[in-house]
Amino acid sequence: DQPWNETDSCGTGVSNYTVKAPKKNIWLGLTEAEVAGITEFVHNQKSLNLTAVENATNWDNSLLLVELMLPNKTDALNYFDGGGAEPARHAHIEVDHRASVHNPAYLDYIVGPLPISNKTTVEPLAWPYTKGPGSSHNYAADDDARNDFMNNFGAELADITRALWNGTAMGLDNDTMSIWGIDPLFQEDGRTISWDTFWNNNNDVYDDSTLLPLGLFLKPDITGRDPSQWSNQGVLYNGEFYDTIDDFKSAFYSGNIQTFGPNEDEEWGRTDQRGPVNPTDWQSPPMLIQPAGQRFQVDVEQQYVQWMDFEFYIAFTRDTGIKLFDINFKGQRIIYEIGLQEALAHYGANDPVQSGTAYLDSYYGFGPYAFELVNGYDCPSYAFYLNSTFYADETTRTHLNNICLFEQDAGHPIQRHSSSQYVTITRNIFFTVRTVSTVGNYDYMLDYTFYMDGSLHVTVRASGYIQSAYFANNEEYGFHIHEYLSGSMHDHVLNFKVDLDILGEKNSLQNVSFVPATVEYPWSNGKTRNTMKLEKSFVTTETGIDYPYNSAALFAVVNKDKPNKYGELPGFRVLPSTAPVHLTVNAAHWAERNFWVTKQKDTEPRSSHPFNNQDVADLVVNFSKFVDDESIEQEDLVLWINAGMHHVPHTGDLPNTVFSTAWGSRINYHNGNVTEVATFGSETIQPECTV
Amino acid sequence: DQPWNETDSCGTGVSNYTVKAPKKNIWLGLTEAEVAGITEFVHNQKSLNLTAVENATNWDNSLLLVELMLPNKTDALNYFDGGGAEPARHAHIEVDHRASVHNPAYLDYIVGPLPISNKTTVEPLAWPYTKGPGSSHNYAADDDARNDFMNNFGAELADITRALWNGTAMGLDNDTMSIWGIDPLFQEDGRTISWDTFWNNNNDVYDDSTLLPLGLFLKPDITGRDPSQWSNQGVLYNGEFYDTIDDFKSAFYSGNIQTFGPNEDEEWGRTDQRGPVNPTDWQSPPMLIQPAGQRFQVDVEQQYVQWMDFEFYIAFTRDTGIKLFDINFKGQRIIYEIGLQEALAHYGANDPVQSGTAYLDSYYGFGPYAFELVNGYDCPSYAFYLNSTFYADETTRTHLNNICLFEQDAGHPIQRHSSSQYVTITRNIFFTVRTVSTVGNYDYMLDYTFYMDGSLHVTVRASGYIQSAYFANNEEYGFHIHEYLSGSMHDHVLNFKVDLDILGEKNSLQNVSFVPATVEYPWSNGKTRNTMKLEKSFVTTETGIDYPYNSAALFAVVNKDKPNKYGELPGFRVLPSTAPVHLTVNAAHWAERNFWVTKQKDTEPRSSHPFNNQDVADLVVNFSKFVDDESIEQEDLVLWINAGMHHVPHTGDLPNTVFSTAWGSRINYHNGNVTEVATFGSETIQPECTV
Ligand SMILES: [Ca+2]
Ligand SMILES: [Ca+2]
Ligand SMILES: [Ca+2]
Ligand SMILES: [Ca+2]
Ligand SMILES: [Cu+2]
Ligand SMILES: [Cu+2]
Repeated sequence: DQPWNETDSCGTGVSNYTVKAPKKNIWLGLTEAEVAGITEFVHNQKSLNLTAVENATNWDNSLLLVELMLPNKTDALNYFDGGGAEPARHAHIEVDHRASVHNPAYLDYIVGPLPISNKTTVEPLAWPYTKGPGSSHNYAADDDARNDFMNNFGAELADITRALWNGTAMGLDNDTMSIWGIDPLFQEDGRTISWDTFWNNNNDVYDDSTLLPLGLFLKPDITGRDPSQWSNQGVLYNGEFYDTIDDFKSAFYSGNIQTFGPNEDEEWGRTDQRGPVNPTDWQSPPMLIQPAGQRFQVDVEQQYVQWMDFEFYIAFTRDTGIKLFDINFKGQRIIYEIGLQEALAHYGANDPVQSGTAYLDSYYGFGPYAFELVNGYDCPSYAFYLNSTFYADETTRTHLNNICLFEQDAGHPIQRHSSSQYVTITRNIFFTVRTVSTVGNYDYMLDYTFYMDGSLHVTVRASGYIQSAYFANNEEYGFHIHEYLSGSMHDHVLNFKVDLDILGEKNSLQNVSFVPATVEYPWSNGKTRNTMKLEKSFVTTETGIDYPYNSAALFAVVNKDKPNKYGELPGFRVLPSTAPVHLTVNAAHWAERNFWVTKQKDTEPRSSHPFNNQDVADLVVNFSKFVDDESIEQEDLVLWINAGMHHVPHTGDLPNTVFSTAWGSRINYHNGNVTEVATFGSETIQPECTV
Repeated sequence: DQPWNETDSCGTGVSNYTVKAPKKNIWLGLTEAEVAGITEFVHNQKSLNLTAVENATNWDNSLLLVELMLPNKTDALNYFDGGGAEPARHAHIEVDHRASVHNPAYLDYIVGPLPISNKTTVEPLAWPYTKGPGSSHNYAADDDARNDFMNNFGAELADITRALWNGTAMGLDNDTMSIWGIDPLFQEDGRTISWDTFWNNNNDVYDDSTLLPLGLFLKPDITGRDPSQWSNQGVLYNGEFYDTIDDFKSAFYSGNIQTFGPNEDEEWGRTDQRGPVNPTDWQSPPMLIQPAGQRFQVDVEQQYVQWMDFEFYIAFTRDTGIKLFDINFKGQRIIYEIGLQEALAHYGANDPVQSGTAYLDSYYGFGPYAFELVNGYDCPSYAFYLNSTFYADETTRTHLNNICLFEQDAGHPIQRHSSSQYVTITRNIFFTVRTVSTVGNYDYMLDYTFYMDGSLHVTVRASGYIQSAYFANNEEYGFHIHEYLSGSMHDHVLNFKVDLDILGEKNSLQNVSFVPATVEYPWSNGKTRNTMKLEKSFVTTETGIDYPYNSAALFAVVNKDKPNKYGELPGFRVLPSTAPVHLTVNAAHWAERNFWVTKQKDTEPRSSHPFNNQDVADLVVNFSKFVDDESIEQEDLVLWINAGMHHVPHTGDLPNTVFSTAWGSRINYHNGNVTEVATFGSETIQPECTV
C-alpha cells in the first residue's frame, strides 16, 4: 500500500503540487480593486482633505497606507472554529497629515465595511493603540526643507570640507558628501534637535556609505514648520563643541585643532570578488537538490501551505513583512499567529549621531523592502516562490518571488541509535519559509523553520553594511576597524508575537526549574544527599521573563485542563537557540527582557507601531501598558519573544557583516587586508527595483 | 587565469583528491607492529606479572590499553616550528592489576622510546596526573562474581518478581530481567555499596532496556574481594526501605504494600517505522549532492586534511575519540589542539540508582564505540571516510569509515546585501569532520565545523534511548512519560580542551563587556545621557567563567604583543551557540562553569581520566588543581569549554531523544501514542560489530 510512483520519484516530480485551503485566508491583503475603491472613497471624504500623492506638497495631506485591517482573533476563530461568517473586511489607512502649521501628524483610520457601500465609514482608528486614536506628530513633514537647510551649512563649511576631505555637500550634482543624522530626533527642552554629520558618498554600485562618516557634526534646531526659524546650535569636531559655525571656523583656521582624514570609498568597501581564490573554490560547491519533486502543497491564491503534518496561512504587511496564521500540526492548531513586531538597532557612542541612533525599522517597513529572492543563493534552486503585494502611492505594487518555501536536508540526522546489531537513523528534513528585507544598510533574513518532530524555529540573520562611527576618542564605544573608522557598538533586538494555543485558547505558562536540593531519603542511611529537583510552578500574572542563570528552567505554554493520560500537561516549550540577548540600556520597553507573556486582547494586536520613532515621549503603542498584572492562568496567552545580539563590529564585519555566528571566530585578525574574507564572493545583478 | 576544468566541473570530479602532509602526523596512533612489539615487551617485564588477556581470570593482571603517548606540546612545536627532530615515540599502557587482594587497581605506565630496543623502559606514568602515578582502585575487578552474587538475590526474590512482573533475573538463559545499578559505586563509611535495581530485558533488536526499570532496589555491600563477605544491606520498594529481603518479603505477603506494574518491552520502545505516513513522505526527500567532485584534500595515511584555507591533523584515542591538532587558517596556526575531554551525564532522582548515576563516559571510551557511519544518513552520500584503529585485547582493531569529512551548503547564505541596483550574496559552504560514538544508550554525534570566514563550530548532539526511572513518588524528578516510567532529569556536560594559539603561543584572555553608562558629553548641553560603553579588560589569572547575564560580554583569546595596524588585538572569540549550561549540582569540578582558562602545561594534557569514576574521592586527574591562580597574561593559554543541556525527558523523547532543539517544541503532547513522531523512521541493519 505504498503509494510510491516510480514515474515521479526520480524526475522533476510533482512540482508545484497544489492544494485548496480549507478556509479563506482572511489575513491576506486587500485586492487591487479594494485598494482602488478605498482610495476613491477616502478622497471623497472632505474631512480628510486629501491630495493625490503625485500632486501633494509638504503642505498637503496624502494617503500613506491602505492595508487590510487584520481581523480580530475573536472574529477569526468564530469563522474558523465556530462555523460563523467570514469576518467583515475593513481597511486600515494612514494619512500623512501635513496641511497643518502646528500639528502635522500621521493619522490612522479604519475604513469599512468593504466593499465600499453606503454603509462604509471612515473613523479614527483607536482600539489597537494604547495612546487612543492613532496619531503621531509628523517630524518628517518638512524633510525637503531640511535638506535645503542642511545644504546651506554644507556650503558655509565648503572651505573646510574641501580642505579636510576634498569635497562638498551643498545639494549640487557634483557633491561628494551628504549630511544626515540621528533617528529618532532629539526632543530637548521643548525644542526639536536633529544632530547631523557629514558622510562621504558612495561612488559605485556598492552602497557602503554607512562606512564613510567624516566626524564633523552639526546641531540643527528644526523646531516648528517655519524653516526661517530654524538654526544651527553648534558644531562638534574631535570631541570639541563650538557654539557656532564661526567659532569652529576660527578654531580651524587658528591651526590649533587636530584634524583627521576621511573614510573614503575604496576597494575595502566593495563586496565583489577580490583577493586570491583557493584553487578548489573554482570547482562548483556541494548543493541542495530535490530529486523527486516538491513534497509540500501550496494554495497560491490563498497563500496556504501544507508540509507534512503542518498547515498554515501566510499574511504580509507593510510594517513587518510576513506573518503566519493558524499553524496546525497533525490537525490541531498550535499557533494562532506568529510574526515580527519590531526591530530595534540601538547604538552607543560618544558622538551625538550614533549615540542618538535607535532605529525602529518598522517605520521604514519590512514589507516594501522584501525584494525578489535570488534563486540558488538566497534559497535553494528548487524553492517554491510566492509574491507579495502591498500599497504604495495610491496603487498596489507586487514584489515577485519575495517569499520562498523549501525543504532541505540538515546534513545531520534528527534521530539515530546504534547497537551491535542494528542502526536506526532518521534524516532531518526540515521546511523553511523565508523572506529577506533590506532596511537600509542591513539585510534581515527571516526564517520560519518547521521540523518533523513538530518543533518550530524562528531565525533572524543580519548581513549587509554596518553603520559605523568616525574614529575619534571613542575607543570605549567600538573597535578601531579601518583608517578613521569605529565599529560602533550596538544592540539588535527583534520582537516576535507568538500566540500559542495549546489544545484550545485557555493556557498557562509553566516554569519547570532545575534546582539544587539537599535531601534525606528513606534509603540514605540518615544522611542527606546533594542532588537536584524539578520545581514546577506557573507564572500567574503578566510579566517579562529572562531565561535564568545556567539556563536552569524550562518554560512552556501548557493547558492545565487537558492533562495527558499520564497527568502531565501538554505544551509547547519556548527556548532560545542562541545565547539570549536583550537591550543593554532601557530604550524600548518590549526589548528589555528576553520574552513577555500577556493575556491575549483583540485590542493589543501588535507590540509596536511604525510611528513610535516619531514621538518617543508619547508612543502610539506603548507595550508597557500591555503588561498590567492581569492573571494569566488558563487564559488565552500571547508571548512576545525577543531575538537579537550585542554587536561589536570588528575588522571581520568589513565589508559586510556575516550571517554566521559560530562557537569561535576570529576578531580583529585581519591586518590591513580587511577584505580577505570576501574571497568567496559571488554576485548577481538584478534589474533596478525601488520601493 | 581561472583554473576551471570543464571536464571536472560536472562529473564525478577530483574525488579523493590527495595531498601530502607537510609534516608527519605525530599524534597518529601506534602501528600494528608497534603494538605487537610493546605487548611482547611488557609481557616480558616480570614486575608487571601480566597474563595474556584471553587467559586472564579475575585474579590475573592484564593489558587494558596500549596507545600512543601523545607528544608534549613543547616537543611537538620544536618539531613543527623549530626545525627540531620528530619527538621520540612512547606508548601509554594501562594494566588491569587484579592479582592483589587489597589493592586491585588500574595502573598507567609509559613505555619507550619506541621502537622497542635495549633503551626501552616501562615506568609508572605520573606527570600527566594530578594524583601522582596513574593508579586507581579497581572496583570492577570482581564484576563476574558480582553478577553471580546479584543473581542469587534475583533467585531469592523470584517468587515476588514472578508475581509482580511474570519473570525472573537469576542468571538463567530464560531470564526476562536483569539487575544492575549505580555508576560510580557509593563509598559510604568505608564500605563499597552498589545500589542495584531490576530491569526488564529487551526482547528484540531495539535495545530499549534503559526504558524498562521495575522499581525494586537492592543495596549490596560489595566491600573487598571476598564475595563470601559481601551482603545485601536492604531493599527499597515504592519509597519504603526494608533492612532485609525477608522484611520486604513479609511486607509483600502481608498485602499491606502498594504494588505497581512493569514497564514492558513493547511497540512503544521500537524505533522502526510505525503509524501513518504522510503521503508525500513516500517521495524521496531533498538531498545534498556534490556535483563537481570533492573540493578538499586528504592525506589518508597521515590523517591530514586541507579544506580551503584550513589545514589540520586528526588523532583518535580510546578514551575520547577524535581530536584535531595544528589547525591552521591561511597558513597561521589558530588552534594547537581541540578535543573532547570527558562527558558527564548526572541524574537527579529519589531512588538510589538514578540518584547515584553520574556517568563519566570516557571510562567506557568514545573511541571503541565510534562505529562505521551510515552513508547518506549519518553523513551525506558523497562524504569521504577515514578509518580509526585502536587497541583491544592485545591486538589492534580497525573501525572502517567511522570518521566522515564533507562539505555542504547550509541552505542560507553567509553574506548578502541588496540595494536597488545590485545584490551580492555568498553561499555558506561549510566543512564538517564528524564521528558518532554510541556509549550505551546514547549516541553522541560530534561535529567540528569550519566556515569560510575562518570561524569554527563544535557541536555535540545526543540521540538514542534515555535512561529512565521507575515512576513512583518521583514527580519532582521528572515527567511521567509512560505507564510506570519517569523521564529522569539529568544534566549533560561535555568538556572540550581548546588550545588556541593566536599569532604565537603567548596570549591573553580579553573580556569586552557591554555596560550601561550615564555620561555627560561636550555636546550634551550639560545633561547626562543614559547610554552604554565597552569595558575592555583582561582576565589576569586562571579561573572558571560563566557567560554573563544578558550575554553582555565578548571573550576572546588575543595576542597583546601583536596589535593589528589599528591597534586592536587580533583574537579568536569564544561564544556559546546555544543557551549555555553547566552542572546544577557540583559533582565534577570541570563541569561547574561554562568554561575555564588555564596556563598550558605539558603536564596537564587532559582535564579528566577514564578511571575518575572508580575512585571519586581520589581522582587521578583532579581538574581543580589546574586552576591554581597562575598568571595568564601573555602566556600559552588553554580553554576548557563545556557544552551540554539540562534534560527533562518528556513523551517526545520516546522512543528516542531527538537531536534537534528548536526555538519551540511540543512537550508532553503525545496522548497515549508516544510513537507518533517516529512516522518518519528509516533504518539500516549493519553487520554485527562489537567492541
Ligand atoms: Ca494585560
Ligand atoms: Ca494563545
Ligand atoms: Ca595552573
Ligand atoms: Ca594556547
Ligand atoms: Cu549590527
Ligand atoms: Cu539526556
